[in-house]
Amino acid sequence: MANSKYEYVKKFEVDDKLPPHNWIVLRIDGCHFHRFSADHMFEKPNDENALNLMNICAVTMLEHFPDIVFAYGVSDEYSFILKETTEFYQRRASKILSLGVSYFTSVYVMKWKDFFPHKELREPPSFDGRVICYPRAKIVRDYLAWRQVDCHINNQYNTCFWMLVKSGKTEREAQESLKGTLAKDKNELLFQQFSVNYDKLPAMFRKGSCVYVDKVEETVKLDDSGNPVKRLRKKVTVGHFDIIGPKFWNEHPYILEEE
Amino acid sequence: MANSKYEYVKKFEVDDKLPPHNWIVLRIDGCHFHRFSADHMFEKPNDENALNLMNICAVTMLEHFPDIVFAYGVSDEYSFILKETTEFYQRRASKILSLGVSYFTSVYVMKWKDFFPHKELREPPSFDGRVICYPRAKIVRDYLAWRQVDCHINNQYNTCFWMLVKSGKTEREAQESLKGTLAKDKNELLFQQFSVNYDKLPAMFRKGSCVYVDKVEETVKLDDSGNPVKRLRKKVTVGHFDIIGPKFWNEHPYILEEE
Amino acid sequence: MANSKYEYVKKFEVDDKLPPHNWIVLRIDGCHFHRFSADHMFEKPNDENALNLMNICAVTMLEHFPDIVFAYGVSDEYSFILKETTEFYQRRASKILSLGVSYFTSVYVMKWKDFFPHKELREPPSFDGRVICYPRAKIVRDYLAWRQVDCHINNQYNTCFWMLVKSGKTEREAQESLKGTLAKDKNELLFQQFSVNYDKLPAMFRKGSCVYVDKVEETVKLDDSGNPVKRLRKKVTVGHFDIIGPKFWNEHPYILEEE
Amino acid sequence: MANSKYEYVKKFEVDDKLPPHNWIVLRIDGCHFHRFSADHMFEKPNDENALNLMNICAVTMLEHFPDIVFAYGVSDEYSFILKETTEFYQRRASKILSLGVSYFTSVYVMKWKDFFPHKELREPPSFDGRVICYPRAKIVRDYLAWRQVDCHINNQYNTCFWMLVKSGKTEREAQESLKGTLAKDKNELLFQQFSVNYDKLPAMFRKGSCVYVDKVEETVKLDDSGNPVKRLRKKVTVGHFDIIGPKFWNEHPYILEEE
Repeated sequence: MANSKYEYVKKFEVDDKLPPHNWIVLRIDGCHFHRFSADHMFEKPNDENALNLMNICAVTMLEHFPDIVFAYGVSDEYSFILKETTEFYQRRASKILSLGVSYFTSVYVMKWKDFFPHKELREPPSFDGRVICYPRAKIVRDYLAWRQVDCHINNQYNTCFWMLVKSGKTEREAQESLKGTLAKDKNELLFQQFSVNYDKLPAMFRKGSCVYVDKVEETVKLDDSGNPVKRLRKKVTVGHFDIIGPKFWNEHPYILEEE
Repeated sequence: MANSKYEYVKKFEVDDKLPPHNWIVLRIDGCHFHRFSADHMFEKPNDENALNLMNICAVTMLEHFPDIVFAYGVSDEYSFILKETTEFYQRRASKILSLGVSYFTSVYVMKWKDFFPHKELREPPSFDGRVICYPRAKIVRDYLAWRQVDCHINNQYNTCFWMLVKSGKTEREAQESLKGTLAKDKNELLFQQFSVNYDKLPAMFRKGSCVYVDKVEETVKLDDSGNPVKRLRKKVTVGHFDIIGPKFWNEHPYILEEE
Repeated sequence: MANSKYEYVKKFEVDDKLPPHNWIVLRIDGCHFHRFSADHMFEKPNDENALNLMNICAVTMLEHFPDIVFAYGVSDEYSFILKETTEFYQRRASKILSLGVSYFTSVYVMKWKDFFPHKELREPPSFDGRVICYPRAKIVRDYLAWRQVDCHINNQYNTCFWMLVKSGKTEREAQESLKGTLAKDKNELLFQQFSVNYDKLPAMFRKGSCVYVDKVEETVKLDDSGNPVKRLRKKVTVGHFDIIGPKFWNEHPYILEEE
Repeated sequence: MANSKYEYVKKFEVDDKLPPHNWIVLRIDGCHFHRFSADHMFEKPNDENALNLMNICAVTMLEHFPDIVFAYGVSDEYSFILKETTEFYQRRASKILSLGVSYFTSVYVMKWKDFFPHKELREPPSFDGRVICYPRAKIVRDYLAWRQVDCHINNQYNTCFWMLVKSGKTEREAQESLKGTLAKDKNELLFQQFSVNYDKLPAMFRKGSCVYVDKVEETVKLDDSGNPVKRLRKKVTVGHFDIIGPKFWNEHPYILEEE
């Protein structure tokens, strides 16, 4: 066809298929969300509406991309786990990355007004992303543990920091007084100075959010003898669990099942 | 720090820096826009509002990412050229890809109501993308020529196709009667059957859209003798030029200037 | 230093580290060995000296590169398995590939005269190579099974082919008469026409060669009561086993042990 | 075929084609040649036989791989430039790397006895390698200049170092007395202490070796009138030129000609 003279430029595109039999993680991160959250006056240290908006985006992702088996979110970041055997766009990294990030962003902007009905978006929110391959389910669990430990450390720090700031310290003073403190020092500080029991704070703040397809049993109808006829229904579910220990995974073995 | 036990998972992230001294093309494509444009009743073969929305997104991209030196758009697709020497995010492919696609998507959703005030978005629009390296400016020009030839071929076909459909043919009949026709046959068909001179159709439909930073001379003030004091001002500009031949490039040599 | 003006060229080198926790396979293949084996009048279908030369090269590889845990060779091809956790040259693909192929080639040329004392090398033998990552031991076993099935199919075919040729057929006729035959047909042909029991042919021809570090118990000395004091000694060993079934792997579980 | 159950393992092989329209550099480096040259008692700072052996390997490479347009060698290192448009093994990086390194190694071992008739090889010499893409001829020239500047700096240092050692200093003392000296200091030292004019040392030591296809005019026969009939003959040539300045390249414009 007439186009052939220029078509050689297609040869510069690279084949970026991810290797088979690897779990694929797509991690999305808010870009300049420090500034974005200030511009939109998010509550500190945690803005419940902002987190719920992130969570609804993640739920929509799982509904839209059926090969995502699990998602974990904290702050302005979300990790999506695609199953080991996915053939979504032939496992092409740039397709998975760009479509995932684009769809997430699109939902974020569209749903914004549902969570912030009285705040206009003042600038376009955007997210960067990356895809990472993990060769075994065990390492995917370590990846998720890494993110949840991070959530814990950051949230504990931020909770103390903003308590101190709200109590009258400057940001610099707050920073100074937390330098070098251990986890239990921070819990002690919250309890002594602010009568806050860290463990009683909302689980969403302390544990982040897990999104996954739960299999719930439901009664479809009664049979002729009046006994319930049940079936398993798949339902995208949000929870705030510990995913470092084995409990959650033992209860949901199908999520990271290896072929 | 306490996180170290799991931090080994970071080692699975790959270094995806693009090679130096290559021009970087980021091409964005509407995902399932065939269905999306039907769902939102875009005019056929070209919806001026939809194209103008794409163009405003591209203009916003050039304002937001100063290393983009040129963009070319047609239909639901846009190519952005980053200058050869860009150090944007250290040339990391996944950063450039994800941030570009995310920002574009975000602007698309936010500006939607400006172009379609009476149409609600019925589903989240999304875009996929890819990044491609080109080692020389000459090849970047061939890349752009490739896209513009494609624009021409598709637009000529679609113009005939929708004329035939609007005149009463079924989509199948329209398809059949265009099979095997050459460019000049199609122009003839438009002229004979519909009195349409293809070359008089809007340039935006026939040529696509170019977005670039123009350097315009403007008068700042008059000096003491009353003579104008001028300066070059940079201005993001949209035009619908031929970019296959040398004319545009000769007039704007700075756009694809090689180091 | 004075060199800095040009040192920017180093930035074009790419980071080619292979992902952690993957088994690494280095497969080496004789380049144009069809011609090379004709030029050096290798016996058909199997030249015992040529195979033994390949095997001694593989043994030398295992002695030289301690992270190779297993090697499998057939014809002019050898696969080397590096353990999952190897940090050899920080897992850089081009280092592993080039050093492995170069060392193998070097030994091949140096040892040639030990196996072919009366044949001069008429041209430089060379090998190409590739490195492949496998995420789990189970898949490495499938890889090895793939190579051994290939060995079996090729050897059975070649045995028939050369028997027919040696019995007076042309190469074309031999090819024709084997077209479409099944495994059992070929065994039958060997037995009926040439009184050859395929299963009695040397295991090295039928099974290929396995090279690995065996742990053999040896008596170091007698203790004061005259009882033997034993220890495990590591010894690079060549064998011709079935590696498709589980037997060999059950007996040598340490070879593909996963962390 | 029977093999299909295991053939899925082939999917783990990656497509490693190098991008089109880039010059490809294959650089080969002696592995542990510090020890190798000591074991084989190479003369210091330069062993003419060892360098000539490297050069004959490079010449054989150019004769064997016609897409190599230039090679530059110094010490135990050689860089081979493949022309921009090469389609050698479809530009697959691992093929180019492994075949190049393997062939070079093979020739090195085979030709060893021609250059060291009285020295047995005591261990298998081996080379590592890497391939690098350069988008423009100008950058390839900078790459070569980088290697030649390196040659100069190292050779000047080594010449001084070994002169000092041969004159009775320990290696440590020699090192100490050269610390912090500039190029002109070293030339002065050679001249004052050893009456050596650095610029009069053999060009092969100071400039390294260039290997390329020269086009030489030769008389084929005389025509009927007795006038010579000439033709251009291609001849692989070794020289020791300055390749930092423009002179050599102006005289041989076809070597790095861009399409």
